[in-house]
Amino acid sequence: MKTLSVELGARSYPIHIGDGLLARSELLAPHVEDRKIMVVSNETVAPLYLTDVERSLAGHAVSSVVLPDGEVFKTLDVLNRIFDALLERRFSRDCCLLALGGGVIGDMTGFAAACYQRGVAHIQVPTTLLAQVDSSVGGKTAVNHRLGKNMIGAFHQPSCVLIDTATLGSLAPREYRSGLAEVIKYGLIRDPELFSWLESGLESLLAHSAEAMEFVIERSCRNKAEIVAEDERESGPRALLNLGHTFGHAIETGLGYGVWLHGEAVAAGICLAAAMSARLGWISDTDCQRVTSLVERAGLPTGLPEGLDDKRVLALMGVDKKVMAGRLRLVLLKGIGHALVSDDFDPDVLKAILAETRFAA
Amino acid sequence: MKTLSVELGARSYPIHIGDGLLARSELLAPHVEDRKIMVVSNETVAPLYLTDVERSLAGHAVSSVVLPDGEVFKTLDVLNRIFDALLERRFSRDCCLLALGGGVIGDMTGFAAACYQRGVAHIQVPTTLLAQVDSSVGGKTAVNHRLGKNMIGAFHQPSCVLIDTATLGSLAPREYRSGLAEVIKYGLIRDPELFSWLESGLESLLAHSAEAMEFVIERSCRNKAEIVAEDERESGPRALLNLGHTFGHAIETGLGYGVWLHGEAVAAGICLAAAMSARLGWISDTDCQRVTSLVERAGLPTGLPEGLDDKRVLALMGVDKKVMAGRLRLVLLKGIGHALVSDDFDPDVLKAILAETRFAA
Repeated sequence: MKTLSVELGARSYPIHIGDGLLARSELLAPHVEDRKIMVVSNETVAPLYLTDVERSLAGHAVSSVVLPDGEVFKTLDVLNRIFDALLERRFSRDCCLLALGGGVIGDMTGFAAACYQRGVAHIQVPTTLLAQVDSSVGGKTAVNHRLGKNMIGAFHQPSCVLIDTATLGSLAPREYRSGLAEVIKYGLIRDPELFSWLESGLESLLAHSAEAMEFVIERSCRNKAEIVAEDERESGPRALLNLGHTFGHAIETGLGYGVWLHGEAVAAGICLAAAMSARLGWISDTDCQRVTSLVERAGLPTGLPEGLDDKRVLALMGVDKKVMAGRLRLVLLKGIGHALVSDDFDPDVLKAILAETRFAA
Repeated sequence: MKTLSVELGARSYPIHIGDGLLARSELLAPHVEDRKIMVVSNETVAPLYLTDVERSLAGHAVSSVVLPDGEVFKTLDVLNRIFDALLERRFSRDCCLLALGGGVIGDMTGFAAACYQRGVAHIQVPTTLLAQVDSSVGGKTAVNHRLGKNMIGAFHQPSCVLIDTATLGSLAPREYRSGLAEVIKYGLIRDPELFSWLESGLESLLAHSAEAMEFVIERSCRNKAEIVAEDERESGPRALLNLGHTFGHAIETGLGYGVWLHGEAVAAGICLAAAMSARLGWISDTDCQRVTSLVERAGLPTGLPEGLDDKRVLALMGVDKKVMAGRLRLVLLKGIGHALVSDDFDPDVLKAILAETRFAA
């Protein structure tokens, strides 16, 4: 087991990473104390792991609420089911929520914890690669709105992140590949060594090598923890974590939530950002090709889905959270391992890239 | 005009109080800068004051969303209409919301600002006495859940509170009296001079004397600002502001939201807390009588509504936000101007007080 720390003063918390951690009740104990626990999970994950978690919490008052599975359910309406469960069982402000599932469950549980009685504790137990390398760490929580992804949310840090790599064994291959998009992202924005490692080690990762998975998860969490410690509320460098996400969110909203997985949309977005950076002369065509090639080898899309109008994508990008003073700002590349947030580009270049860069499944 | 300040370091903000302030565009200007503004109001207040506010914001990009009026609309569903309006008009994170209305509008606008794109700025322009003396100051925001009042919310401070006492001229008498409950509360928890002033000055206040209203609003805001500066997130003394509220919220939820106004339910709650404090021997029967008598003279209820089962009230009190480790904690009195939060009481005393203390309208 490895343990990292997200350093946020009084709100610092550990990230435990290892095989079989769901059974390690002593890792949860310090964060649970004598609190009542509400486990929030979904219909796919609960049958697999809810019993394990309940066993690890034996001796505590544990309830659970099981939501339907999928991005399309990440709404205010479904969020309210968590509040229903908490109030029906008379949970008070000194309770603790536990998110058992992927990014959707993590985001919704975190947001429910941020809002219930104006803020209660929560623990993240991510069971997908995407949630383990990215969304469970850093306290960004949200639900979607029909007009924009993650538009309603809060910054609310968990008290612990418990990553059991064994849960990846049950993950659908498409879900697993989706998580790789966020790993590639860390390489591109600040960790060129990780990017090079992926170029040579991708096959071992795709073959679920335990060593490769643990390396990649720890490395990703370390990158994430450093950025979050530096800029918790995204006033500066944290925005770099959104490489590919402005494009990606527009794809997800435009296609309908859940048609493409979040990581798939982000992968396409990363390729679009790389293509745009090359067109602007900020990176070489060779580097752009390295990005596209790695994304392709990971089995992920490299451009806009067929049938999604590029003008609609452009319009949807205009409600992005990074828009300031009416100007769209994008995370773009200056090299492998070097990103920046910029509005200093010709809008026609963006339009051209959107019109040209398609992915045929 | 008087100006107070809520001292919260970098998040400090002014409270301007005076007659005709809606027309004083220079008071809003420093908080608006070049932001797009979304005014949130309701069907009662918008026809009266929306044009005035828009005039004060001339030169800025101003939109508005008008919600139905009443506590029964303080829900996640209606909150979503604010998000609809923001996204339809492509508001970005550097926008500003402006709450124009009473406590319901203030709470919902503040909560929408807390959650939209994970947090944007907002300004409070309260138009009811209750909102002017209490709910617009201090950053508590929320919506109701069918099982409990204000159960879903956030702490999110405004950037300015603008109190135009002229708006009270259009307030229904019942709404005006309702606001007096919160003024009485400040007297009871920490300002015995204010309580004495009310005992002698109540008639001038009920007659809408401009001097009396301005005195009471400023004094209330000063009390609130001091407490909030000391304990923003209610880890200690801020809980005293909930005198009467645990009873009151249970009454509001039990009767159905909006049947009694918030201030009416709080008034009854204050009398119940006083009766309980007397029964416990913590205050004299004379002091208890002073409380009940002042509430009665203000035209407010002094006990549970006829027809509401006291056992149901007790059950609803059990989901209060001050419950800790399964124990109900109440704000009770040790004297006029001296309150405390305590779970150190015989539950049978609470049951008896609920069973005995009725108000016949």
